[in-house]
This record gives sequence, C-alpha cells and structure tokens, in this order.
Amino acid sequence: MATVSEFLIERLENAGIKHVFGVPGDYVLDFYTKLWNSLKIKVINTTDETHAGFAADAYARINGIGCCCTTYNVGTLKVANACACAYAERSPVVVISGSPGMKEREEGHLLHHMVRSFNCQHDIFKNLTCASVVLDNQTTAGYLIDKAFESLQHYKQPIYIELPRDIANKSIVYDVYDQGTPQKSKSDPENLEESLSEVSAWINTAKNPAILAGVELARYGLQDRMVKFAEKLNIPVATTLLSKSTINETHPLFAGVYSGSASHEYTRRIVDGSDCLLMFGVMLTDISLNFRPSKFNKRQVVNVSVSGLQVRTHTFANVGFSDFCTLLFKSELGIHENPDIPVRKNKLVFTPKKNQAITTRRLFEKVNSVLDKNMSIVADIGDSLFGAGDLIVQNTNHFLSPAFYTSMGFAIPGALGVQMARPSVRPIVLVGDGAFQMSMTELSTIIQHNLNPIVIIMNNDGYATERLLRDGEFNNIRRWKYYKVVDLLDGGFSAEIRTEEDLDKHMTKALESKSLYILDVVLDGKDISDGMRRMADALSKRI
Amino acid sequence: MATVSEFLIERLENAGIKHVFGVPGDYVLDFYTKLWNSLKIKVINTTDETHAGFAADAYARINGIGCCCTTYNVGTLKVANACACAYAERSPVVVISGSPGMKEREEGHLLHHMVRSFNCQHDIFKNLTCASVVLDNQTTAGYLIDKAFESLQHYKQPIYIELPRDIANKSIVYDVYDQGTPQKSKSDPENLEESLSEVSAWINTAKNPAILAGVELARYGLQDRMVKFAEKLNIPVATTLLSKSTINETHPLFAGVYSGSASHEYTRRIVDGSDCLLMFGVMLTDISLNFRPSKFNKRQVVNVSVSGLQVRTHTFANVGFSDFCTLLFKSELGIHENPDIPVRKNKLVFTPKKNQAITTRRLFEKVNSVLDKNMSIVADIGDSLFGAGDLIVQNTNHFLSPAFYTSMGFAIPGALGVQMARPSVRPIVLVGDGAFQMSMTELSTIIQHNLNPIVIIMNNDGYATERLLRDGEFNNIRRWKYYKVVDLLDGGFSAEIRTEEDLDKHMTKALESKSLYILDVVLDGKDISDGMRRMADALSKRI
Repeated sequence: MATVSEFLIERLENAGIKHVFGVPGDYVLDFYTKLWNSLKIKVINTTDETHAGFAADAYARINGIGCCCTTYNVGTLKVANACACAYAERSPVVVISGSPGMKEREEGHLLHHMVRSFNCQHDIFKNLTCASVVLDNQTTAGYLIDKAFESLQHYKQPIYIELPRDIANKSIVYDVYDQGTPQKSKSDPENLEESLSEVSAWINTAKNPAILAGVELARYGLQDRMVKFAEKLNIPVATTLLSKSTINETHPLFAGVYSGSASHEYTRRIVDGSDCLLMFGVMLTDISLNFRPSKFNKRQVVNVSVSGLQVRTHTFANVGFSDFCTLLFKSELGIHENPDIPVRKNKLVFTPKKNQAITTRRLFEKVNSVLDKNMSIVADIGDSLFGAGDLIVQNTNHFLSPAFYTSMGFAIPGALGVQMARPSVRPIVLVGDGAFQMSMTELSTIIQHNLNPIVIIMNNDGYATERLLRDGEFNNIRRWKYYKVVDLLDGGFSAEIRTEEDLDKHMTKALESKSLYILDVVLDGKDISDGMRRMADALSKRI
Repeated sequence: MATVSEFLIERLENAGIKHVFGVPGDYVLDFYTKLWNSLKIKVINTTDETHAGFAADAYARINGIGCCCTTYNVGTLKVANACACAYAERSPVVVISGSPGMKEREEGHLLHHMVRSFNCQHDIFKNLTCASVVLDNQTTAGYLIDKAFESLQHYKQPIYIELPRDIANKSIVYDVYDQGTPQKSKSDPENLEESLSEVSAWINTAKNPAILAGVELARYGLQDRMVKFAEKLNIPVATTLLSKSTINETHPLFAGVYSGSASHEYTRRIVDGSDCLLMFGVMLTDISLNFRPSKFNKRQVVNVSVSGLQVRTHTFANVGFSDFCTLLFKSELGIHENPDIPVRKNKLVFTPKKNQAITTRRLFEKVNSVLDKNMSIVADIGDSLFGAGDLIVQNTNHFLSPAFYTSMGFAIPGALGVQMARPSVRPIVLVGDGAFQMSMTELSTIIQHNLNPIVIIMNNDGYATERLLRDGEFNNIRRWKYYKVVDLLDGGFSAEIRTEEDLDKHMTKALESKSLYILDVVLDGKDISDGMRRMADALSKRI
C-alpha cells in the first residue's frame, strides 16, 4: 500500500518529471527526503525558493511539465511570483509545499512560519494556479492529486499541492473516491465541423493568408504540425516575443516576430496586411501589440486559442483549441503563391573593429553570428528581451523569456531549468545588471551541476527600459565587478568586455569552454538595441 | 489641492517614515519619482523586492513604522513573504504597490505583469495585512488611506495600499467621505477597573511574581514603563526569543530568555515556578515553548495581550492591552524580595587559544565580549538565532530576529533597515551560509549608503538546524569563497576565520573599521551552539 508521499512521487514520475527544484525546510523535510531518494527523480537544491520556481517554469516550457518543492510560507511564498509568471504564460508547474500537520494545527499554540491562519497559503495560491489542493486526509489525497494533475494537463498552468507533514506517511486510500477519469470536455461535433469547413474554404480563397503562431501551440505540442501545415500551403508564419522560436527562424516561411508598430516593416506588411490571418494560440499582450490598440481588422482574422474560436465577426462555442488545430492541420487545402519575405542571411559574420567600444547593436550581431541549432537563448527582461527579438533562433522552442509577465530575474534560474531539461543544448543567457543582481546566486547551482551556459551581462548601470519611460537617479544601479563573481562562487570563467575585440576573443573562448562562462559586457548607459529603439516611442507614452 | 500621490506621501511623512525601501517599475514609476523627490523621505533602492520588504520590516521594528514601494505583481509578489513575516510578528509596514491604471484595465488586451485578473494581487495581500485598499478613485482614496493607517496603528501589522497609475496624479477629493476619525475601541471601564484591582491584589499577595515580557510591549511603546514597574516592585523579567532585549540584559532583574525546556535552569525556575506570572504581550509560539505543550499552570498566570486578558481561569472582555498595561504600570504596589537570579558577568573576556580551530561556542563568546550598548544584534534563522539567545544585549530593543515566523534571509536586509532607522548603532549580523546565499546581494546597498555592520557568516556548509531534524545530502550547501564577496561588490572588508586567533584579530579590525566588515567563520558542519543543543532533543521529534 503506497503512502501519500509515494503516490505523489509516482504521479510526478509518470507525468515526466525527472528533476525537481527546491529548498528543504522542516515542514517538507520528510517528503523531501523521499523525493531525494527516489530513483527516477533528481532533486536540485537552489540557493533560494524564488529561483526554484523560475527553474521549474523554464524546465516545464521545455519538458512539458516542471516541479518545485518548498516548505510552508517562508519557502513557498517566495515561489508566488514565479508561479504567477507560469500561470500568466501557461507553463505547467507543480508547486508542492509541505505544511504543518493536521494534528499539530489543533494544539493551539502558534506554529512557526504561520501567518494569520493555516489556510492563508492555500488561499494565496488559489489566485495563481488552475487547481490547488490541500491533502488533508489520506482518503481524499489520491483523488485530489489526480484531479489537480488533470487540470494541469488541460490548462497547461501551475497547480498547488499542499502536503501537511503528518499526512505524508499515511497509506493512501483511493478506492472510495475512484470515480474514474472525469469526462474530458469534448468539442461539439457540429460546431467543430462547421467552423473547420468555413475556415478551410476561406483559406483556399484568400489572397495572402498568414499565420500568427502563439505560445499555446508549443504548450499543447502542436507546433510541428502547424509548421507542416504552413509548408503544405506555402503560407508565412510570424510569431510574437512570447512565442518566438515556435518555428525555426531560418525557415524560409518565417516572417519575423510581430510586435505591432515595433515590428520589422515586412512582418507588419505580412501580418497586418493579410486578408486571412490565422492566429493559433496567440496571447494578445500589450507588448505583442507594442502598447497600442490592435491593428487587426477582425473581418480578416481567425483567432483560435484556449479561450475560444472567433472567425471574422462570429464565434463558435465549444470548439477545443487542440481539436480544431489538429483537424485543420490535417486538411487538404490549396497551395498559395510564395509570400514576400526578404531573404535573410542565416550566418552573419562578425568582424571586430579595432579599439571600438562595444555597443548593444554589435553585441547582438555577435550573438547572432555564433548561434547554431544546438544553442538556445534565455532572455531576461528589458533590452535583453527586446534586443533578443531580432536574433535568429535556429531550432524550435530554443528561445525562452517571460515576455508577457516580464518578471526580472528569470533568465539565470531559467537557464538552470533549460539545461536540466535539455542537457545537450547550451543556453546563451542575456541578462541586465539589475536582473543579474537579483538572481546571480543561482550560478552556484549551475556550477555545482557542471552546466555551462554562456551568461552575457548587459552592464549599463541601470534599468534601461525605465530610463526610456521616466529618467531619474532611481534608475541607476550600483556597479559591481561582475566578472569577479567566479571568484566568489569558486567556479566558471569570466571576462570583462569593453571592446569589440574583447567580445570576439572571449566569445571564442566561451564557445570552446565546457564550463559556465560569464561575459561582463560594459555598455553605455544610454545605448539601446534596435528592438528597444523601435518600441521606445510607444513605451514612453505609457506612464 | 493635493494629488493622491501627494496626499499619500504626506501621510507617510506624518506617520514618521523617513526612509522607503523599494525597486522602481513602470506601474509605480510616477509615484516613485515623487517619493524620490520628496524632501523628508529618502528612497533606498534595494537589489531585490524581497529584501526591500525585510528592510522595511526591520526599520519598522526600530522606528515604529516602515514602508516599501514596488511595482505590480513582479515586484510586489516578491514582498509577500516579508509581509507575512511582519504580519506574524506585528511589525507595522506600509506596502505600497503601483498597478495598471483603471482606464487601461478596460482596454481589453492583456497587460504585462498580469496574472488571472487585476485584483489577484489585492486578494493575495488580504491574507497578509490587517487592512488592504485599492485607491481606485480619487473620491475615496483619502478616506481609504486614513482608514488603512488607523488599522496599522491599532494592530501594528502591515497594510497594503495599491495605487493604479492613472489615479496617482488625480486631485484628491476628501470631503464627501470625511466622516471624522472613527471612535477608537475603548476598554469597558468596569471590566478594566475590576481586572486591575484583582491583578493588583494578587501581585501584592504573591510569593514570587515574575514578568514574561512579550514583543507586543515594544510594538506598543510600553517597554520602558514595564521596566520601571518591575523595578518598583522588584520582580524579575524574562523575555522570549522574539522579545529578547525588551529589557536591557545587563539589568539585575533580567531573568533570561524563556524557551520552555530549552531555557537556562534559573529562567525556568523563575518563570515556571512563579505563583503569579505576568505575561505582557507574549506570543506563545512553538519556539518559545521549545515545541512542547506549555508548562504554565493557568491558575498562576495573568496573560494580557492584543488578543485579550485572561486572569487565572477567567477572562475579561473589552479590556485593551495598552489601557490595562498603562494603568497597571502606574499602580502603587508593594515591594517584593530580591529574586534569585545568578550574577552574570557583563563583560566577558575572550582570550584566544593558540592554533585552536574556531567553534560555535567560542564564536558567541567572542561576540559577547565585544557587545556594548551601541551595538545591536540582527540574527538570521537557525543557529544564528538559537545561539544568539544567550548573548547579553546591553540596550533595549537592540536585538532583532524573525524568531516566530523564522524566514531565512532576514538579517542582511534587516541590518540595512536597522541602521537606516538608527544610524548611530552598529549592527552585528549573524547569518548562516544558506541565508547568506539568499540575501548577500543587499550588501551592495549597505556599501552604497556607507553603512558599516559587522557580518558574521556561520559557514558550516549546510542547513544546521535541519541536520538535527533529518540528516541527508540535501542539507549540504555548496561552499563559496564568501570572503571574496567584497571584491565582487567592490566595497567593504572581509576575512576568512579559521582559528580563535583569526577571530580575535579580525574582530578588532572590524571594530576599528568604519566600513562593512565580513567575517567568514569556517565552522565544523556538526558543531552547534549551546542554545541549539538545548533545543536539539525537542527539535528532532518534530518531523
């Protein structure tokens, strides 16, 4: 007879979890021990719970599911922000928290880590998850765990599982509640057929159909089918910052990253100018529209996502995102003329100029020149993200950034998650000095597990995005000798980069190295990327 | 006519706020600018919002009120844990968060930093504050701010003020809602008189009355009156870990820190053996009872706190904590015989032994030998706290630690808050390697503002408390070259301490220095303090 802990661990294993990120604490210590000793799951201790959350999120984006495990309140409340990020951007993370035993809750004195009442933490996480359960007795625990996992799979959003420590070792009683898997919400067959036939006919008669590929395609494992569909019909595919790399960006049908008025001209022409824009799983965020009202004429749009299906001016109820996409992508439809996409050079050559101070533009040119299909980009917020929009990512799903929720401090713990999920891929981490100060301690965990991201610090002494919004002394960040972090952490390599030649030389070294390599790139405080420059005007009006 | 921002800033100033800790972000940028430019308030940017929360908490414990200011979700959710700590331990912190404008909320597209709905953050902070308000229009804003501040003053707990960015600059309209200050909840005069007369009579006839002084005395500014009362009656005063330093610990009436079975023998004798134990504002936490049921016989106890008044087996309703204490402390009562408190040496001499590896016990002996009334102790969690319980703190309210909520990572940002609130006092920070890794980035802010705490890292490669509970590899922490942190941060001094002579030499240097000084004290992984040893047995049974 399995205990509640064993049951939960088995469910994690079956769902595809091979790594759990966390920090041990007394209320979760018993479960943590069992997890640590499990054969199929490796537990990765992080330096802080905040980072365990982000690592689990990044891991989930690659692996299809992620998990973090922490103790009551003092640990789990630090996961709240990362959990919110995963919720907003549909990343399926299992948040497991230990908590006081049910018995000790009755004893009447104040237990450490308590806030107002024992259920505060649960009440908080209800706001940040698609399902949240407290395993408060052994009879319902199994049922609740399964219900929560089902919810995670359906919504691709985080779930919260609270395990009171005196329940962890109780034998699970499942039979009573084993009511079988609840009926999946199925699409209405008539609505599905009618909508497919309308959309198919429209695509066939459209002059210049185009796809705007959203992040939900990746979350529901539909991206490869979407690409084949685009190839079959010969229609262009644009993405958003949040869904960047849904299609390999060297693909001739890739039409660029759409960001409203901040897009490249050809991307805007293809997306805004399409007479039949197929939006698959797109989250229309302020950043994806460059902080302006949508330019889309709804008479030219099919918009299907987890939230519903809209075709021109009408909607179809009860049509599932996966059902619709799967069937549409199989349809036999006519071939379109070649779209008008400028030819891109895939491998740009970077020739360093002598004694030339490094600039943001040249930094991104250099990164573009070394990117290959075995490297991924993990971008933090600010110019790390806006600049990275123009990088040519050469493999599907090899770009990660919280481009909607935009929480600083994601990229370094994110790289930990990415490389745990995909050990053969080397992440290039783009991070500003502000976000580096928030999350640099996690480089320690990266060193401990012999991972080897190349971390590029865009060191411009401040919050560059905010300088555009409202300049002031408060946007300044005190400069550290960032390259000395390897001495403190006792691992990895680093270099201070001031010129193009420095960058060229040390990027070569970094690429040759099998260790963590940190490039402290000293930039002018006013220097910004081309991507941010295109956004600047709209940004500055948003205060 | 003041704007909502100006009104809020004026209320902060009037409440005694001189420093606000925060990180700017776009939704709060306009208010942040005004706060930055205010003449009476200095804004301290921290490296991370987590630390802004802890710094504000520590500041509030000294100053009577603290404040942090952050942006929507990505910033403020990181304050959740610190806010929970302040709630649990009654520290009055104003949590100010910017948020999307009321108008832009209606525009229909997804705004960055959003989670499920616009009110998620507010719903979360309802669990962590005694009052939470969203200033969603200029007509109610003033009233809501005043109500929230009133609540903070009454409960001495955090409040949450959310400021949508398009309301910040609107002129405040107050008149409509100016219903005058609501009636304060007053004590019932008959209950108050009756209870005072019963308690006074009892104290006069008791053989060995004793005071257990709780943290609420400090929060409500009653501690000095309590000490005078004890002196007048000649009765001993014990404290708890959470209220340690409510009385100057060199005071002859100080009877030690009470921690149930982990207390010193004489403290237990005085507290558990009293026939009239006066508990003033005590929070009876699991740690204060050493994780065991209370030994107090309620027939021997007067327990008055914010939660109510209990005398022996009966309770008095509607008797305010402040009202009762203020009147009792003024009463003319008889003098008692000298209590049986062992004579303590205040200034212990530390003579380093040659080539002797440093131990935890000797480390605390050294700290005790240098402590004076111009130094405070800021202790993180684990042996930093349990060991520090035995230090002799020579000034009122000069010991700080989240001894109930016990969140790691408090002490370094806490020292920032303490020294901002009390610049003439030098903090000695006790922090384990785990908590150091969580919060070391805030040393940068400490350097930036020329503060000079002495930071003692208890470097034992792991979570020492957890090793007692359940040992395993997961309790190990990867060792950094901690003393090199000053090179990375480019400020302060440091030394690696391996022997008693190292400690002696570098403590002298630290005391002479006017800068941040970090002592990386290398301890054996199994070595623990006397304080922790007294708790070990009870601790290990709590898993």
